[in-house]
Amino acid sequence: MDPQTFMDIATKVTKLKMYPYFDIAHYTLMCMSVRDDLPLNQPAGTQPFYRRHPLSTWLSSMLLCFAGSIIANILLGEPAITPFKDHRSVLTSTAVWYLVFYSPFDVVYKLARLLPFKMVICGFKEVQRASKIYAAVNHTAKLYPNAYLIIVLVGTIKGAGSYLMKNFERLIRGVWMPGSNEILQPSFATKACLVASIVFLLERLNYIQAPHPIIYFGVVIFFVYFKLSALLLGIHDPFAPFENLFCAIFMGGMWDALRRAVVREQKPADASDRNDMPMKSKEEKKKD
Amino acid sequence: MDPQTFMDIATKVTKLKMYPYFDIAHYTLMCMSVRDDLPLNQPAGTQPFYRRHPLSTWLSSMLLCFAGSIIANILLGEPAITPFKDHRSVLTSTAVWYLVFYSPFDVVYKLARLLPFKMVICGFKEVQRASKIYAAVNHTAKLYPNAYLIIVLVGTIKGAGSYLMKNFERLIRGVWMPGSNEILQPSFATKACLVASIVFLLERLNYIQAPHPIIYFGVVIFFVYFKLSALLLGIHDPFAPFENLFCAIFMGGMWDALRRAVVREQKPADASDRNDMPMKSKEEKKKD
Amino acid sequence: MDPQTFMDIATKVTKLKMYPYFDIAHYTLMCMSVRDDLPLNQPAGTQPFYRRHPLSTWLSSMLLCFAGSIIANILLGEPAITPFKDHRSVLTSTAVWYLVFYSPFDVVYKLARLLPFKMVICGFKEVQRASKIYAAVNHTAKLYPNAYLIIVLVGTIKGAGSYLMKNFERLIRGVWMPGSNEILQPSFATKACLVASIVFLLERLNYIQAPHPIIYFGVVIFFVYFKLSALLLGIHDPFAPFENLFCAIFMGGMWDALRRAVVREQKPADASDRNDMPMKSKEEKKKD
Repeated sequence: MDPQTFMDIATKVTKLKMYPYFDIAHYTLMCMSVRDDLPLNQPAGTQPFYRRHPLSTWLSSMLLCFAGSIIANILLGEPAITPFKDHRSVLTSTAVWYLVFYSPFDVVYKLARLLPFKMVICGFKEVQRASKIYAAVNHTAKLYPNAYLIIVLVGTIKGAGSYLMKNFERLIRGVWMPGSNEILQPSFATKACLVASIVFLLERLNYIQAPHPIIYFGVVIFFVYFKLSALLLGIHDPFAPFENLFCAIFMGGMWDALRRAVVREQKPADASDRNDMPMKSKEEKKKD
Repeated sequence: MDPQTFMDIATKVTKLKMYPYFDIAHYTLMCMSVRDDLPLNQPAGTQPFYRRHPLSTWLSSMLLCFAGSIIANILLGEPAITPFKDHRSVLTSTAVWYLVFYSPFDVVYKLARLLPFKMVICGFKEVQRASKIYAAVNHTAKLYPNAYLIIVLVGTIKGAGSYLMKNFERLIRGVWMPGSNEILQPSFATKACLVASIVFLLERLNYIQAPHPIIYFGVVIFFVYFKLSALLLGIHDPFAPFENLFCAIFMGGMWDALRRAVVREQKPADASDRNDMPMKSKEEKKKD
Repeated sequence: MDPQTFMDIATKVTKLKMYPYFDIAHYTLMCMSVRDDLPLNQPAGTQPFYRRHPLSTWLSSMLLCFAGSIIANILLGEPAITPFKDHRSVLTSTAVWYLVFYSPFDVVYKLARLLPFKMVICGFKEVQRASKIYAAVNHTAKLYPNAYLIIVLVGTIKGAGSYLMKNFERLIRGVWMPGSNEILQPSFATKACLVASIVFLLERLNYIQAPHPIIYFGVVIFFVYFKLSALLLGIHDPFAPFENLFCAIFMGGMWDALRRAVVREQKPADASDRNDMPMKSKEEKKKD
């Protein structure tokens, strides 16, 4: 590909306006995730949950649509309600919510679940995600110039806020599942947002010496590529092997292996040599 | 009634000071709602919950007494602890809490539950509610002049904060009921606060051309009237018919009826024509 | 002891720098409390929780390490994320977290649980607690000069934040125990923090006329003494007798006794005279 053409495309992607199409794709996915999370089994003869509790589905959808802003605002001490100041986005997301939940003959929801449409919507959403992370990193870097951890955290939260909001969004719908949350099992999207935030921060600190459109376009391609491969090929977490390796080395796995080797050498006949030492120490604790 | 007398009364109501009597009525109802929410069944031979955990009932009561301010402050990025800055209200509400929970021979609680006293207390509380909503709408309108949605939301929250706080107030007492919340089943009071906020906002925007005391007095009468009819006649939600109509038309009910009619015409002999299409689509989803 | 020597020691304690040793003792105890709170029983053949979910234990530990600041910041309307601005403390606490959870052969965790080491760590932590409370009382007194309640509350929260954070810290680890919280059963540490906040506030208001180092040193000794006696002698709550007396007099116990005496005089043959009146009134309520 001609480098000049590539550069032109990258510059165009950098200057894309999020408002009508990319935001709508984001809102659509958020409303669909609320709807997909509703209980499937309902008592016979009753209407589905979203018919009986429209206020609850609306607020749930809004919380997810603006999750990143809301959480980041709370953490940064800014008004949590700020996203509702922008009437245009609230009206747009409300329209999307209405169409996803109550469109005639459910046509919008059914179409959006078809693979070709879903691919387009997801692709658009990933572009919007990259744009949000970039804006968040720059905004936070102005507020806290040297607080790199905060910059990366806020970037991640703005990109993957809906995952972190999930527990509270469910609470609005009367569902409480404390056993699962994004911190316990981070999704690929959250990790990708972390990586993207770090990349944008490094760019800001001049550690990455490429032209801005190239970096930005690279992040967008990274997001879109992995989203589409998750949709089409079912690859859900390309980071998993690296994480497992990291955990095996640094999170105690190495010492485990070392200990097991030592124990085996000392008592080769002992059958219980595979017990973990931490478990034993916990049993000792119990006896205390 | 003489219009001039009516106007005089309305002006007087507008200028009523909330502090001693109306605030006390509010605090009394909040503390009573904490006490009424305590578990009735306790193990034999033990003391009631509020005897064993006074700190918990105190904090619960304070959270409900100042619920509107606390939630609105968090949403607006102001210090959540602000209500505790005002020693007079905290001391008054603490005194009310003490009397409701620990008065000699429980006399205050028992009296306050008698219908005549309850009517007066509830009436006073509704006057205070109207005053809080009006203050909230004006305060927020100064902070966010054009953010109508935020103005209405904050007005509603200041008027009906205790309902929204319920889940967290229960948590303080060690009770967690995620299955019920104010968003899932909004009470009449919340809806009435929403209507009052909209009325005060419309007045501010000059869409309602009546003199201010008349509008304010109208809202007060609206609150008191429906509260007393709920107490005396058991009418709990005068908005319900309108809501049901709205839901039936806009929240998918119309399309349901249309579809059912179409299905019936096409297959008049089919017995299963009453199944909802959304349910089918969910079954399809399951098969995916 | 020579008063001058005592004064010199007190002045030195007042000027102690918290950073390396006292902060590390605090972080160690916080990380250990996260680890001790992990479930003991795990399915056979699986790794312990902290091996599988390092992000979750890290965030839990950070929330506890900076619990006081986070909660106080939220209440005071300051950015909740502020503690993460200070890279030195975050890096130190992360290093401590790593050593407590994943040190070779678990040596750090096992050593820190030995009584002599534990005594030193706990002693250091109490010195840090006193210092945090003093700083919090002074900081808040500057923000809200006359709001004594807020000053005392923030002092208590900064000193005992980790206890208040417990429920949410557990949620991060996928555990939700609404039935127990610090408000329901305040620990001795929380009550001691309350007392220390009040002492520092009284000093600030010139009601205590002793030199500052003496007051400060007194509070430190009070914290350390009771912590060590809890560790060594198992005395867990020296305030309990006073509280029970207070509750017996002011929280309804007195009226109970009076009523029982009256009832006994009236119906000496009645066997059911020990029933509590509140229970009866609740049964009446049921019948309503």
